[in-house]
Amino acid sequence: MNPLHFKEGEGGGFIRIGGIAKGSGMIQPNMATMLAFLTTDANIAQPLLQKTFAKLIDRSFNRISVDGDTSTNDMAVLLANGQSGTAELTEGTRAFDLFKDALEHVLVRLAKMIARDGEGATKLVEIVVNGARTETEALQAARSVANSNLVKTAIHGADANWGRILAAVGYSGIDFQPDLVELFFNELPILKPHYEIVIDEVKAKEIFSSENITITIDLHQGPASANFWTCDLSKEYVHINASYRT
Amino acid sequence: MNPLHFKEGEGGGFIRIGGIAKGSGMIQPNMATMLAFLTTDANIAQPLLQKTFAKLIDRSFNRISVDGDTSTNDMAVLLANGQSGTAELTEGTRAFDLFKDALEHVLVRLAKMIARDGEGATKLVEIVVNGARTETEALQAARSVANSNLVKTAIHGADANWGRILAAVGYSGIDFQPDLVELFFNELPILKPHYEIVIDEVKAKEIFSSENITITIDLHQGPASANFWTCDLSKEYVHINASYRT
Repeated sequence: MNPLHFKEGEGGGFIRIGGIAKGSGMIQPNMATMLAFLTTDANIAQPLLQKTFAKLIDRSFNRISVDGDTSTNDMAVLLANGQSGTAELTEGTRAFDLFKDALEHVLVRLAKMIARDGEGATKLVEIVVNGARTETEALQAARSVANSNLVKTAIHGADANWGRILAAVGYSGIDFQPDLVELFFNELPILKPHYEIVIDEVKAKEIFSSENITITIDLHQGPASANFWTCDLSKEYVHINASYRT
Repeated sequence: MNPLHFKEGEGGGFIRIGGIAKGSGMIQPNMATMLAFLTTDANIAQPLLQKTFAKLIDRSFNRISVDGDTSTNDMAVLLANGQSGTAELTEGTRAFDLFKDALEHVLVRLAKMIARDGEGATKLVEIVVNGARTETEALQAARSVANSNLVKTAIHGADANWGRILAAVGYSGIDFQPDLVELFFNELPILKPHYEIVIDEVKAKEIFSSENITITIDLHQGPASANFWTCDLSKEYVHINASYRT
């Protein structure tokens, strides 16, 4: 991708962030076959850059899954050469916050590109869980939905099967009240609390037929949210992984 | 299946155990679409029967997976009418142990039939983990391998890809020493400790081409074992679950 330029606001000038990443099977990174290389000319101390990078990795690359198979050798590297000519970035400043947001933007964009580029994939799916008690629980529910072969085949078939989504939240292991759950496909309400089914099957199928789908689950249990990116599961995925040696 | 008859040894006579079960997608039971009905004419108190049944369910139905999607409504029921005419079964007796073994035999047989009958499945795969520190860890590693889409597609393609198996043990979350791991396909040694690769690719492919495959992983970390049953992942699975409404 092209480097993302942004004006840092204090001290003037530009900082560039570039990134390259490679997927696209054995993907559910936990900084274990994914490779990502990032570069920036920001002027920033190594410890602060490492801390910031690790935190943002957890919100980008570590939130995608193609097949649920965590690789033994995922890697993300960020190199900073300090050549932007701007003042050194330090925590608690607006310049640092701008840099962090820009870095997150690049990381999330690369992560989504990997998920969309998954073996055999035809669609990018974002799972958003809102209203969880904690971010850990939100992430656990989102990951469970993202890794469900039944959800992923339904999406592949443009079958708006919301029951499979709820089932995957149910077996995710988090504690929640099923009767409070609200579900949306993009902006379309599917299920309202107290099991009020409001799905418009025609519109829902239209959404599931597109290449970018957002599934939002509101648990109404608390203030925490998390999102996660995945792709559909196709016959082509099976073909690639069953027959790649022949 | 035909009822399994066995002679109970003390007090004479026969006790019958019968079972019927239904799979075959949304299967990774945790006594949550699977249905199983068992009957016996054993003379046994309800609390003891319930306790024994629950324990054996954990070693049979709760150790299979077709797609990793735990259903919302798995069920296993065991009815006993006490009409065998044998003495009441009580804990700590040989008669009870014989009954328990026979019941486990029926449950495991039904569980394996469900896995083999999984949507689109062409093979039954048993994962055996030995040498774990605890049974919980053995089961966690076995389940991780059984639910790996990369392992399941490799088996479908008769591709003896042992690296995918080790990777799934690695990301299972258990603590183990990778250099101690030993791996077998049926009786064929694949990997010996200290990364000695002894695989005979021709024989390994033969094994992976058959309808019944056992993958044994010895962690050499302790005394505990667990086994788990699964099936291969085929294009037919994707077809069934992406297009069942059309």
